Parts: sequence; C-alpha cells; structure tokens
Amino acid sequence: MCSKPTDRLFKLGKLNHVAIAVPDIDQAAAMYRDTLGAKVSEKHAQPDHGVYTVFVELGDTKIELLYPMGDNSPIQNFLDKNKNGGMHHICLEVDNIHEAIKAVSAQKIRTLGKEPKIGAHGKPVIFLHPKDCNGTLVELEEQ
Amino acid sequence: MCSKPTDRLFKLGKLNHVAIAVPDIDQAAAMYRDTLGAKVSEKHAQPDHGVYTVFVELGDTKIELLYPMGDNSPIQNFLDKNKNGGMHHICLEVDNIHEAIKAVSAQKIRTLGKEPKIGAHGKPVIFLHPKDCNGTLVELEEQ
Repeated sequence: MCSKPTDRLFKLGKLNHVAIAVPDIDQAAAMYRDTLGAKVSEKHAQPDHGVYTVFVELGDTKIELLYPMGDNSPIQNFLDKNKNGGMHHICLEVDNIHEAIKAVSAQKIRTLGKEPKIGAHGKPVIFLHPKDCNGTLVELEEQ
Repeated sequence: MCSKPTDRLFKLGKLNHVAIAVPDIDQAAAMYRDTLGAKVSEKHAQPDHGVYTVFVELGDTKIELLYPMGDNSPIQNFLDKNKNGGMHHICLEVDNIHEAIKAVSAQKIRTLGKEPKIGAHGKPVIFLHPKDCNGTLVELEEQ
C-alpha cells in the first residue's frame, strides 16, 4: 500500500522564526524597533550556542536576530562570508521531532547530526541540510 | 522635541511571507506538502512578475516558493548564483506604504525605486535595499 498523508506520525506547526545574522545587533534591533515600530526583545546572551539573540515580534512568528558570541560561534563563519549579514535559517515547529526525523530521512533529506539537541529556546531541535531543502537551512523544533 | 514612537505615521503588521527561490518548484512543493505535511497551494503563474509561485501555509504566515518564468525573471539571476536555491526575501505588512517609505528614507535606508509598485498579491509594495537591512532583502506590502 502507498504511504498516505494520514500515515504521517508528526504534525507540522507554525513558522517559529526566521533567523537573520547581523553585523551589529544593537543597530539591527533599533531598525526594527525605532524605524519600523516592531516590538523587540532585550538582547539575550546564549553562551551554550555561541550567539546573542534579539527577537522581533511579527504576528504569531518572529525574526531572530543573531550575533556571534565567543571565538567559536557558528555565526561568525557566516558573517565572514556575508559581511552585511543575511538570512541564516528558518525554524518550523513539529510536535514529535523523532518522527519528523524519520520522515525526512525516509525522503533522503539529511539532518545535521543524528539526534536532536537542545536548542536556544530550551527545546529539542534538529537542522536539515540546506542542499536538501532548496538551499535553505531548516530547523525543526519540537513544541 | 524628540521623535517618539507615537509620531510614527504607519503601523507595522505581521510577517506576510518568507520567499525562497527554488530550482524545482514541484519538488519543493512536494517536500513541504508530502514530507512535512503543510497545506500547499497550487502553482500560480505570475507573468507580470516573471515568476511561478507556490504558497506554503504556516500559522498566520507563509513560505512563498519562487521559480523563474520567462527570459527576464528577477529570480533567474538569483538561481544562477545559488544553484540549490535559497532564501530570497522577507515581506512585512504595513498599513500605509507611503508613510513607511518616508520613515525608512529618513533613516537612510534606501528603497529600490522611489514609488511603490503593484506586487504579486495585487497590493502596493516596495523593496528595501539589502545592504541597509542586514543583508536581507525586505519587501514592505500595504494591507
């Protein structure tokens, strides 16, 4: 029998955020807050993930501004290649990350690592390889 | 007197969409629909804008998949540089695009063109220069 959509053992949720790596997080936060009028969070240090984050609220989703923290930040390499900053990844919510990993793996979509890790929001996350997702780094986050 | 947030003469709305340019729009739509389980639109031809579009619903926002249409598509150049595809722009809603243009221009954020044009959704839009927005092409769309 063919696999039907109802066989899917996880449910996709909303777009949790779009992450943008920025060369000056205070200036970027000011642009969204003061020029565009968005509700913008304080700057959070996330030493376990090597980033500072600022969240820009936009409806039921948000922009996550990312700036490198420490010497081995995963964002520094991106900024070295993209001096002005740029869109870094999108994050989609799922209700069961292990089933989501099985489903994408069955379709030959590679994950970065085999097991989910605890992400910047304290929830299990996994990243999908951008080459298998239309050049877009896709994070899945369990809610 | 200082300019206060209440002086802003337009209101920012939600994230309307994240646009992703893709090298195979049917395959990209299938990934979001069949593998991830998203609600995905039919493919729409937008000859005035040189693109085919597919919308992926994600909460109160969406991903707009873009594929070139015709010889002078603005997306072809992007795909020539990004063979796997990639994140192309984000679109933010505003309630008064002329006031939004005045506000960003006052902060030395350049617009691509001086006047709004009618975008792919039939509404007035303007693009902000990526170099002035953290390497991110930002579309403002009047609702």
